[in-house]
Amino acid sequence: MPNPTRPRLLTGDTPTSTGLHLGHYVGSLENRLHFQDHYDCYFLIANVHAFTTLAERPADIRANTLGIIKDWLAVGLDPERSTFVLQSEVPAIAELTFFFAMLIPFNKVMRNPTLKTEIDTKGLGDSYPFGFPMYAVGQCADILAFRPELVPVGEDQEAHIEMCRDVAGKFNQLYCGVNNRTPPDEHTAHGGLFPIPKAKIGRVARLPGLDGVNKMSKSLGNAIFLTDDTKTVQKKLNKITVQPDATTNLVPQSHVLLQYCDAFLPEERAKEIRATYAAGTDVMHGHIKAELGNALNNLLEPMRQRRAKLEGPTGDATATAVIRQGLTKANALAEQTLDLAKQKLGTHFGPRNLTFP
Amino acid sequence: MPNPTRPRLLTGDTPTSTGLHLGHYVGSLENRLHFQDHYDCYFLIANVHAFTTLAERPADIRANTLGIIKDWLAVGLDPERSTFVLQSEVPAIAELTFFFAMLIPFNKVMRNPTLKTEIDTKGLGDSYPFGFPMYAVGQCADILAFRPELVPVGEDQEAHIEMCRDVAGKFNQLYCGVNNRTPPDEHTAHGGLFPIPKAKIGRVARLPGLDGVNKMSKSLGNAIFLTDDTKTVQKKLNKITVQPDATTNLVPQSHVLLQYCDAFLPEERAKEIRATYAAGTDVMHGHIKAELGNALNNLLEPMRQRRAKLEGPTGDATATAVIRQGLTKANALAEQTLDLAKQKLGTHFGPRNLTFP
Repeated sequence: MPNPTRPRLLTGDTPTSTGLHLGHYVGSLENRLHFQDHYDCYFLIANVHAFTTLAERPADIRANTLGIIKDWLAVGLDPERSTFVLQSEVPAIAELTFFFAMLIPFNKVMRNPTLKTEIDTKGLGDSYPFGFPMYAVGQCADILAFRPELVPVGEDQEAHIEMCRDVAGKFNQLYCGVNNRTPPDEHTAHGGLFPIPKAKIGRVARLPGLDGVNKMSKSLGNAIFLTDDTKTVQKKLNKITVQPDATTNLVPQSHVLLQYCDAFLPEERAKEIRATYAAGTDVMHGHIKAELGNALNNLLEPMRQRRAKLEGPTGDATATAVIRQGLTKANALAEQTLDLAKQKLGTHFGPRNLTFP
Repeated sequence: MPNPTRPRLLTGDTPTSTGLHLGHYVGSLENRLHFQDHYDCYFLIANVHAFTTLAERPADIRANTLGIIKDWLAVGLDPERSTFVLQSEVPAIAELTFFFAMLIPFNKVMRNPTLKTEIDTKGLGDSYPFGFPMYAVGQCADILAFRPELVPVGEDQEAHIEMCRDVAGKFNQLYCGVNNRTPPDEHTAHGGLFPIPKAKIGRVARLPGLDGVNKMSKSLGNAIFLTDDTKTVQKKLNKITVQPDATTNLVPQSHVLLQYCDAFLPEERAKEIRATYAAGTDVMHGHIKAELGNALNNLLEPMRQRRAKLEGPTGDATATAVIRQGLTKANALAEQTLDLAKQKLGTHFGPRNLTFP
């Protein structure tokens, strides 16, 4: 069960693709495993937002949605301790989006640097749907529907969180009588409905790929996937080129192999290896790679086993059951938020009851 | 009870002000009284959209919302025969808005001439909220959530209906396998979820005000209100200037008094009066005004009586009860639409049940 005595935290993924790799693990999933023991966690799948770019491929969005649930379960996210939230099944999110849209200047949305970057990187040019800028407003509701204190995000998402903080603050001031000089941390203490959520940047923002140059990425073919089998993991590691620097004759401390040691070996052991390389001792790269391979396979083996059990229709049924389990929990909170918001907005005309039979 | 064997029709008002006058009556309410006997009617109060311009005055929006319900009841709209819909209490509208936003190009929304006109006439300049263009997309969902065949609107709203028709067609093609050469009228017969709704322009688009020049309007002070008492109605009519044309020495056939005769006297009698004026017979304007006053007071008296009974807290309670009565009916249909849409979109993960205890 969610633990309401802990600070509430919300984060999530958009199901635009499948296939998690170590970059995802280090960048976010590992953090979430940790969060589960310290926060009241809400993990959201933004399947409606996936339509901004995949509206013409709805079957892919559905497959990716189920795939992400399976990935989460395989990694060890636990629907008993945390709340899994499927965006399309939480009406309060869409309803709050409308009210929040009234509080954000149009020009401010269109100037959002994260949106601008996405228009460039996704090559949307001039032909994006209205839903594209709207999703930035929707993201405020994704978050605020659950009134979390913390929102772990990548650095590139900070503009979105800033907009969310603005909206929360404006709502509190306009409809809850919070003074515009009240510090963000004190809004709820002064009657504000929404805590002003804080962004929480993860421990490792960027894991390099096997090429040692680019960020690990499915499309660049430089990734170790969480589903790679034992031999594939080792084979991929073995292909990493380790070349001493021409001037110093030392393997640079920034080398990808050393970064992997930091990420996947015990801290002390990673330090030891770094020291060996720094001293220029004749290190056996093959041994290090084997050691890393063992560590990775120990990490991945239980995930692979869990993921394998979730393939096919039985796995789809499990993922769907997990979604429905989350719906009841997620909507209990989101409906409460909406009910309170409507009271503040003067749009409350009696209770409603939303159930998932 | 709604009559599902009749063609379905949806129309509505935005609660940005109160105080209905004869212009509203002739332009839309009189039509609605007629519709009630021939269509399965849904009358929507767009209270969320009222936040586009009144976000800082939520209490006004609530008062206007209750006021509009009272006005409707006073005029004779009947919540037993028709379905009254409060927008903020129909989650499917907000949820469908999101999916429709993915099907409408951003540039198309921003080029909507109705929006552009509103930005000018409301003096919004550069400072409107994101919710302002969003409401044009939301209006597609206001309509399509109820899958009506007909949408009675003013001429200035035709661009909105055109967008709604586009979205319905695109959804049917993309998610229901409707061919892009299928005529609009045949979409549902070919598996489309949404009928392509038709705009229905009212009988009298524009009633002039007492000044005889401008459209009747509260802000121009040239209106006869539905709540004006007997004496006030007659006094306002008596002040209308009737001046023969300098050249022809005849009262022009376009004169406001003659337009009122057309609108409020029996057809034959209005023709007779027009003929008298055309012949240049020495007409007794005062008698005509008295005759008009009688006709108007006969029309308005039952409305005034009903409206008077709805003042104060008891009336608020009645209006609220009428809203809740409509919610159950409206949401039964809108939830069905959303459920079917989700099946088409691949976002269906089991049923939900929405009730209003």
